[in-house]
Amino acid sequence: MEVRIAVAKINKYASLESGDTLEVTERPNGGLSVVLADGQTSGRGAKAVSMMVVRKVIGLLAEGVRDGAAARAASDALYTDKNAKVSCTLNIASIDLETNTVVLSRNNPSPIFICHDDRIDCMDTESSPLGIRRDIRPVITELELRPGLTVVLYTDGLTHAGKRRGQPMDICNAIQAMLEDQDPTPQELSDSLLAHAVNLDEGRPADDISIVVLKVRTINGDMVRRMSVRLPLP
Amino acid sequence: MEVRIAVAKINKYASLESGDTLEVTERPNGGLSVVLADGQTSGRGAKAVSMMVVRKVIGLLAEGVRDGAAARAASDALYTDKNAKVSCTLNIASIDLETNTVVLSRNNPSPIFICHDDRIDCMDTESSPLGIRRDIRPVITELELRPGLTVVLYTDGLTHAGKRRGQPMDICNAIQAMLEDQDPTPQELSDSLLAHAVNLDEGRPADDISIVVLKVRTINGDMVRRMSVRLPLP
Repeated sequence: MEVRIAVAKINKYASLESGDTLEVTERPNGGLSVVLADGQTSGRGAKAVSMMVVRKVIGLLAEGVRDGAAARAASDALYTDKNAKVSCTLNIASIDLETNTVVLSRNNPSPIFICHDDRIDCMDTESSPLGIRRDIRPVITELELRPGLTVVLYTDGLTHAGKRRGQPMDICNAIQAMLEDQDPTPQELSDSLLAHAVNLDEGRPADDISIVVLKVRTINGDMVRRMSVRLPLP
Repeated sequence: MEVRIAVAKINKYASLESGDTLEVTERPNGGLSVVLADGQTSGRGAKAVSMMVVRKVIGLLAEGVRDGAAARAASDALYTDKNAKVSCTLNIASIDLETNTVVLSRNNPSPIFICHDDRIDCMDTESSPLGIRRDIRPVITELELRPGLTVVLYTDGLTHAGKRRGQPMDICNAIQAMLEDQDPTPQELSDSLLAHAVNLDEGRPADDISIVVLKVRTINGDMVRRMSVRLPLP
């Protein structure tokens, strides 16, 4: 069995800095966590907020703190630092090899899609971003780590794509169409969703967009961990 | 122009935990850093040491601390924590978009290979691992960020491959052969070096091995940042 994770990320049009921050970090007891935060507004201020939140969360995860507790701590720290005036969304997707589960923590109005083979569930329970109240808690979903599982999560730039022209994206349909037609790799799925969104915005994304796709597969491959990163330069 | 980074990583044979830790982190003023540490010995103790060092370094980089200062701080912290009894190698490879350079910091007897098109330079100035003395400093090399540059760095598992059978790997030759024959992607290059090493160890790596390849290319592609991770499960 193997887990593959893919990320596709683009800045708001003509913006040098993304308000989205994403890091992948190793868990001290096995597995890894993807941490994605989107700071309120855009540009440098938003970047500083999302970096602070991601930094706080991965620091705590590295100490063995549970995902939910790390999200609450990041919320309280942001609340205290910014006097409840600045919000930040947070998603944590963890491959936890202690429990053999995928743990999804969500502080984000944008839903998470969970696909088992051809079935798609949209997790859209009400969920508040971090930092705006004292008692913020994440919505947590724990899933067995088994082949055929695909998880798609993203920042709200994807939700807003096309709205300017009155053509918002039907994200669930787009995912369904790809999963039915073929067996896409996570990178194909994230790239295709991002391309769709950028098209709806006529090549000029109205907001920062980050998409994470996680997929569990049966394989008989080698035991090599791999990572690849592409950084386009301005 | 774009930068691509690839990592291939395998555990010592029959070892559940790698003493190598690698993380990629965003730099607060633009760009990213790859941080690779290899803790002394292997297994759980070595993992704890390399995670501590990587955690320390990326925490400091996130605050805007320069790579060299972060390496020195991690060395002093390890020296103090372990009473000079435990060493840890460290490599930091940064794409610094403030200076438009690649900054390579090395606290590792293993060399770094720097390739410009077909020319290969082996950076093997004497360099000490962290934690064993008070005055440890990294060897730092700064290179202009320009197309045609390829950098290869690794932990000493690669150097040790094949030694058990008296057939150590000629790493420089292996890189040269690949660069001359074709224009390999970073992932092809790292995978090929790792496969070569594992073969020399007859499929049972004698040590944890991590290989990082960084390549700068001219392209006219999109402005999408991408990352993909593969985690094989036991």
